[in-house]
Amino acid sequence: MTLTIHQETYPFTAIIGQETMKTAILLNLVNPKLGGVLIKGEKGTAKSTAVRAASELLDDLHVVNLPVSATEDRVVGTLDIEHAIRHGEKKFDPGLLAQADGHILYVDEINLLDDQIVDVLLDAAASGINTVEREGISHSHPARFILVGTMNPEEGDLRPQLLDRFALSVEVAGEKKIEERVEVIERRLAFEADPATFHDRFRSEQEQLRAKILQARELLPALKPSQEILQKAAEIAIALQVDGHRSDITMIKTALTLAALEGSSQAELEHLSRAAVLAMPHRLKKSPFEHQTGTTEKVLQVLREVGALSS
Amino acid sequence: MTLTIHQETYPFTAIIGQETMKTAILLNLVNPKLGGVLIKGEKGTAKSTAVRAASELLDDLHVVNLPVSATEDRVVGTLDIEHAIRHGEKKFDPGLLAQADGHILYVDEINLLDDQIVDVLLDAAASGINTVEREGISHSHPARFILVGTMNPEEGDLRPQLLDRFALSVEVAGEKKIEERVEVIERRLAFEADPATFHDRFRSEQEQLRAKILQARELLPALKPSQEILQKAAEIAIALQVDGHRSDITMIKTALTLAALEGSSQAELEHLSRAAVLAMPHRLKKSPFEHQTGTTEKVLQVLREVGALSS
Amino acid sequence: MTLTIHQETYPFTAIIGQETMKTAILLNLVNPKLGGVLIKGEKGTAKSTAVRAASELLDDLHVVNLPVSATEDRVVGTLDIEHAIRHGEKKFDPGLLAQADGHILYVDEINLLDDQIVDVLLDAAASGINTVEREGISHSHPARFILVGTMNPEEGDLRPQLLDRFALSVEVAGEKKIEERVEVIERRLAFEADPATFHDRFRSEQEQLRAKILQARELLPALKPSQEILQKAAEIAIALQVDGHRSDITMIKTALTLAALEGSSQAELEHLSRAAVLAMPHRLKKSPFEHQTGTTEKVLQVLREVGALSS
Amino acid sequence: MTLTIHQETYPFTAIIGQETMKTAILLNLVNPKLGGVLIKGEKGTAKSTAVRAASELLDDLHVVNLPVSATEDRVVGTLDIEHAIRHGEKKFDPGLLAQADGHILYVDEINLLDDQIVDVLLDAAASGINTVEREGISHSHPARFILVGTMNPEEGDLRPQLLDRFALSVEVAGEKKIEERVEVIERRLAFEADPATFHDRFRSEQEQLRAKILQARELLPALKPSQEILQKAAEIAIALQVDGHRSDITMIKTALTLAALEGSSQAELEHLSRAAVLAMPHRLKKSPFEHQTGTTEKVLQVLREVGALSS
Amino acid sequence: MTLTIHQETYPFTAIIGQETMKTAILLNLVNPKLGGVLIKGEKGTAKSTAVRAASELLDDLHVVNLPVSATEDRVVGTLDIEHAIRHGEKKFDPGLLAQADGHILYVDEINLLDDQIVDVLLDAAASGINTVEREGISHSHPARFILVGTMNPEEGDLRPQLLDRFALSVEVAGEKKIEERVEVIERRLAFEADPATFHDRFRSEQEQLRAKILQARELLPALKPSQEILQKAAEIAIALQVDGHRSDITMIKTALTLAALEGSSQAELEHLSRAAVLAMPHRLKKSPFEHQTGTTEKVLQVLREVGALSS
Amino acid sequence: MTLTIHQETYPFTAIIGQETMKTAILLNLVNPKLGGVLIKGEKGTAKSTAVRAASELLDDLHVVNLPVSATEDRVVGTLDIEHAIRHGEKKFDPGLLAQADGHILYVDEINLLDDQIVDVLLDAAASGINTVEREGISHSHPARFILVGTMNPEEGDLRPQLLDRFALSVEVAGEKKIEERVEVIERRLAFEADPATFHDRFRSEQEQLRAKILQARELLPALKPSQEILQKAAEIAIALQVDGHRSDITMIKTALTLAALEGSSQAELEHLSRAAVLAMPHRLKKSPFEHQTGTTEKVLQVLREVGALSS
Repeated sequence: MTLTIHQETYPFTAIIGQETMKTAILLNLVNPKLGGVLIKGEKGTAKSTAVRAASELLDDLHVVNLPVSATEDRVVGTLDIEHAIRHGEKKFDPGLLAQADGHILYVDEINLLDDQIVDVLLDAAASGINTVEREGISHSHPARFILVGTMNPEEGDLRPQLLDRFALSVEVAGEKKIEERVEVIERRLAFEADPATFHDRFRSEQEQLRAKILQARELLPALKPSQEILQKAAEIAIALQVDGHRSDITMIKTALTLAALEGSSQAELEHLSRAAVLAMPHRLKKSPFEHQTGTTEKVLQVLREVGALSS
Repeated sequence: MTLTIHQETYPFTAIIGQETMKTAILLNLVNPKLGGVLIKGEKGTAKSTAVRAASELLDDLHVVNLPVSATEDRVVGTLDIEHAIRHGEKKFDPGLLAQADGHILYVDEINLLDDQIVDVLLDAAASGINTVEREGISHSHPARFILVGTMNPEEGDLRPQLLDRFALSVEVAGEKKIEERVEVIERRLAFEADPATFHDRFRSEQEQLRAKILQARELLPALKPSQEILQKAAEIAIALQVDGHRSDITMIKTALTLAALEGSSQAELEHLSRAAVLAMPHRLKKSPFEHQTGTTEKVLQVLREVGALSS
Repeated sequence: MTLTIHQETYPFTAIIGQETMKTAILLNLVNPKLGGVLIKGEKGTAKSTAVRAASELLDDLHVVNLPVSATEDRVVGTLDIEHAIRHGEKKFDPGLLAQADGHILYVDEINLLDDQIVDVLLDAAASGINTVEREGISHSHPARFILVGTMNPEEGDLRPQLLDRFALSVEVAGEKKIEERVEVIERRLAFEADPATFHDRFRSEQEQLRAKILQARELLPALKPSQEILQKAAEIAIALQVDGHRSDITMIKTALTLAALEGSSQAELEHLSRAAVLAMPHRLKKSPFEHQTGTTEKVLQVLREVGALSS
Repeated sequence: MTLTIHQETYPFTAIIGQETMKTAILLNLVNPKLGGVLIKGEKGTAKSTAVRAASELLDDLHVVNLPVSATEDRVVGTLDIEHAIRHGEKKFDPGLLAQADGHILYVDEINLLDDQIVDVLLDAAASGINTVEREGISHSHPARFILVGTMNPEEGDLRPQLLDRFALSVEVAGEKKIEERVEVIERRLAFEADPATFHDRFRSEQEQLRAKILQARELLPALKPSQEILQKAAEIAIALQVDGHRSDITMIKTALTLAALEGSSQAELEHLSRAAVLAMPHRLKKSPFEHQTGTTEKVLQVLREVGALSS
Repeated sequence: MTLTIHQETYPFTAIIGQETMKTAILLNLVNPKLGGVLIKGEKGTAKSTAVRAASELLDDLHVVNLPVSATEDRVVGTLDIEHAIRHGEKKFDPGLLAQADGHILYVDEINLLDDQIVDVLLDAAASGINTVEREGISHSHPARFILVGTMNPEEGDLRPQLLDRFALSVEVAGEKKIEERVEVIERRLAFEADPATFHDRFRSEQEQLRAKILQARELLPALKPSQEILQKAAEIAIALQVDGHRSDITMIKTALTLAALEGSSQAELEHLSRAAVLAMPHRLKKSPFEHQTGTTEKVLQVLREVGALSS
Repeated sequence: MTLTIHQETYPFTAIIGQETMKTAILLNLVNPKLGGVLIKGEKGTAKSTAVRAASELLDDLHVVNLPVSATEDRVVGTLDIEHAIRHGEKKFDPGLLAQADGHILYVDEINLLDDQIVDVLLDAAASGINTVEREGISHSHPARFILVGTMNPEEGDLRPQLLDRFALSVEVAGEKKIEERVEVIERRLAFEADPATFHDRFRSEQEQLRAKILQARELLPALKPSQEILQKAAEIAIALQVDGHRSDITMIKTALTLAALEGSSQAELEHLSRAAVLAMPHRLKKSPFEHQTGTTEKVLQVLREVGALSS
């Protein structure tokens, strides 16, 4: 009974710049169990455009939007207790997590979301299962989605406990070169004036990218980490004094997925370095108001120290 | 079943001064997809008079008022879930956004509006679509309106995230010359004493303005930006250090609409400069309590620096 | 179905002193579209006594009391949606604004009233219409009342946005002379001991005042402002740096009404000066905790400077 | 359908000391329109004992207790709207104000009562009428009660607006002499051991006091203030810089009632002085944490200055 | 319909040390109208064990537990208004106060209880009656219980108003001697391993204590205070500058009950001294964070000064 | 009607390091009446993995998860009052405490749980019984569970009252050695890639541990503390200045269980020392922000001083 008016989607490959954000999204498309991405950035950067665009790169992938105002019932679904008591059978009205199964779950301004809902969300993201319990009745269903959250760091941060649950995070900003800004405007005006023609223009690039993702998905299961990159990952995590072990595991998985995306049969130190830049900065302890730029700088520093990055 | 008691409307062309505000409103009438206008100003200036007056300039354009006390249900409409379950068909009670489709949506004291409702409002304004979702049922309808918000800056500002979503903003103040103030009083007393005669007095001016708007609407689709103004727009945005790319695109669109309103077949640098003054000041980072006068001054400064304004 | 127990009303002409407050009330009785009056003053001054007394001066004028605890529904009335859906016809339960139509609406301690209700109140006062909207159904009815608000400035002020919507404001204080205080006590004790006899004592004065008001109501429509007082009004407003144009218009209307009350066929400079003292002090920007006495002093100062008041 | 278990009441005349409090209560019994009394004092003083005891001094006078937790509905009563709509007749469930008509309304810890309920309470106390309005239906009934409030000043004060509405206020403290404290204990133990015998012991004193009150009630209507005490009252009020005129009127009424209670046919200066001590201290502006002892001292000082009290 | 699973109760006489607390509880068992006891102490001391143990010392005495989370309805009971209206007869669902009639009402962590419920509780404790009123219907029933509250002073104190309503208070702490702590552990382990055998071990001591209480109950009504101890009680209260008279009366009653518990036919000065230590410390004004140890020291000091305690 | 999707569980014996945490959990498996364990630690350590893994070590032991957002009704269950009134029989819908009977009750982020629910939880944990009372009806059922709470100390502590109710507490942190971190990653990747094969690899170790627990359960009832360790326990508690006696008893029980787990027929001083380290640190008074590392150091210091630990 769900009706959706599909707005025209901007092609992923037509997005200018923002390479790190685009890579982070693509890695999650290749490896949906990687653990999502948190995009931090100024207003008016292509954050939500990119997420919607990504959904066109795979068949049957669409974006489910979780609004900041959503109630917990709306997110997890509801159990009709009355019905269960009267008819002796469960009746479950699915929520956004059910709709998001197999798709992208997109949360704009995730730092403004109620803490309790963020918890529920990240639990489902981690386990791939959503369980609803009401008065002794419970219902579970798969909830395997790619979580993409965006936030404007000027409006407050997530607490460390939650940050740690995102596999990757990236920071985006507007382009600073005139030619690229002009190109952004021109493409936007062209797209708004005639979406169909605009899509035709990027059809071939889109097809190539799609093929690359599918190939990477096939490559990935066979990739195993070498002892060298395992030890470097541990070394990096210890040097950065991050809590727990989730960071090491994420670095390794990201390095493997990156290798797969680039068609390599082996994850190299260079993949690990780039993985560290995506997986570590948001896990570092930071002073209030310190930007992620600062923590990224620390990660790069440590990568150089442990010899994972040629200075 | 909606009843409205039409109060007598003051003629748009009878408003004395306030040229920038009047231009900003007219631009949105010419190009309803431009993105609305935020009017900041002291109490007792002709803000709401002007908005109501504007609705008389086009056929079938009326003003839908969104009161600060409106609930989210009242704004977006409600879905009757009971009915859907029982009869298997959706029943949607439209809200203010549905009423506003094709019209002006007017929010007085928008800075006092609940953040959540401002979000919903700006989402609909941006997409032209209002989507209501309740317990797995959803309904969408067109919501293409001209958003006009007013606020008294002394009572708090909108957060930057929201400011950025208004295409244009203007600041208004009372007239400072005796003759003009006397004229304001006289016209007001004349209007209150006998509205019909007062309207007759301005009939011809009103007709001319209406014709000008309609002509501009026909001209607009053919107008394309030159490389020069595209580059100047990017240069201005970079120099002003605004976030993201929305500002450049808005400047270009405003310049084109301004050219159309003035019957030009080409947007010139002079149109871009005036567009920048309408589109940029509210997008600048500003210190607390800094008036928009300050940020406008910065825009003018940059316009001079990049050669878009003869000193 | 409304029942009211009429308490004995103290005669308006028996109130000792408080001339400015009494004039402000009478001006609103002569010209109900003037825009109401805000009475600021210590506890225990004759504020509410005067308002109730005023209602006896015209036929069919009574006081509707709006308590600080009134809900918005109680103020604006309610629409029975159920009924509308079932029977296809609107059913409106009128609220205090409907009861107040054609009468005095009295709000004691208006500064303690919920901001949202003050907004609703002043909107109705300004437009003379009350519109209730619920789930797509709306109902409008006339709400032309004389708004009288009272407040103790020690318990917080109204925000400037709201102050500006009152046409006039006056400040009252207890009498400081022994003979007058004795007279106040004696009259009060006499009134409480035997209301009927007390009324007889003031019957003739009451009749004279009533006649004066009715005569002024007939005179008023013919009175027009001269260019001189129009220009002086603008000059005063500019010199006082008040926001917007509402102040000039109110000064002119008040001056005309004052002339009518005193049987003059022309509003003189002296009427404008007295009007300025009633209409301007609450519109001036003032520092926190500054009493209206301070702003009244500034108005007098400017009146002298522009030559509207012989020093 | 109301059931009350009457606890044994301690005899009024058995209360040791606390003369000022006892006088203040008796004055309200003689003149129920005087305006109530506020009793401030430490815990464990005979505040509530005295109020309950007073109710035995007149026939058909009982104490209605208004608990701090009472809702507004419980205080003012409720209108059954459903019933009114269906049967076309009003149905009113009376509240505490209805029960209190003709009796004592007692509010322990009145400073902890919700502000809104204090307002309702004092409005009813002032007008002698309680009006309930719900959705356009209203009901009024007499609510002529003697209001007695108690409070522990250590737990916060009433706001000045409300203090002013109490006619009298007194401050109580425990006895400081050993013999009197022993007497208090002995009487209490005797009363608890055998209430009936204890009552017998004070029967004659109780009867005398009752007769004195009834005689005073007969005397009172004939008593008129002399010019001298009227002028002194005004002089005192001006010297103490209290707001408004309520204080003068209360002083005069209290002096007259005091004269009646003592069987005098004339209120003398000495009565006025004692009235001032009961009626003025809580009306003075005071610095935070200043005890009423301080303001009482100021009243005595002024009384000496104006010659109403021989030093 | 009430089901209770009786946990095994630890014998009162098996509790090691804590003599003051045990005496305070026993005094309330001898004289249920004494007024309860407040037990202050660290976590893990035998507070709740002692209260449960006490209930075994008299027939048909059990402990009703009032949890911190109890609603007011749960405490006072509820009146079914619907039923009253339909059937014309009251229907009362009794609450905890009804259950507690004739028993011990135990409130753990009473300082965390909602102020409003503490008020209700202490009113019932003082009067022995619980009255429920809803919409003009009221129901009263006896509520004569022994109130025992416990609190950890580190988690905030009761306000003085409430402290004063407890007759006695004691402070408990863990044992500081190794042998006694070992004994505490051994008894606890023995009790947990085999409750029945443990009870047998203390059966005789339990019987003796029960007999002592019953004997004291018979003695008590005949005991009267001498003039000497009456005067000393007053002297102590004055010297300690406590508010009101409740403290003197409580000291006398406690001294009499103590004499009865010890089989004396006369309350001596020594009984008064011990009574003062139980009844006075929590009534003294104390500085924030001052422990009761400090106020107890002051009481002992005064007892020495007035000669009630040989230094 | 409860459905649970069992996620693959990581084998307990495959967990690297974290010996203290694993011991604390095993002690509770051997002695379910010991009193639970509180696990404090950084995010991303194996806290919840270990708890789930432990449930596999005994037959019919599963983990019931208590989410931070659980309502009190959800935790304790609900009584259907309507049903009781209509049909005269109780109808109880069991909550999480009923589900947890005989199992592990796991509360992640227990320091974020509502205080009231923590109270309910610890009461049930202490008594082994859950009692639900609603409007005079009550229902009790066994609730004998092993309580395991986890918390991140950076997000606030539990109040001392609640800390004291946990028998044991441990602090965990990520491994700091490269080889062990690599092993953690490798095991995790191996487990995720092929859970079944991974389980086979640890099958023998799992069986041995299970046998050890069952043997300890048989041994435990016969173990009695010697006078020496009883006295040392008391001495330690006094030296550490902990409140109450709960700590001594817990130390002794933990020492006995530890001996049983290690197959000893006697609890030695060495067992007591290790028990003290598990049972005492969270019971010490500590300054704000002091880590448990600090209090553990104090415990070790005292153990050395009393000769329970060879320095």
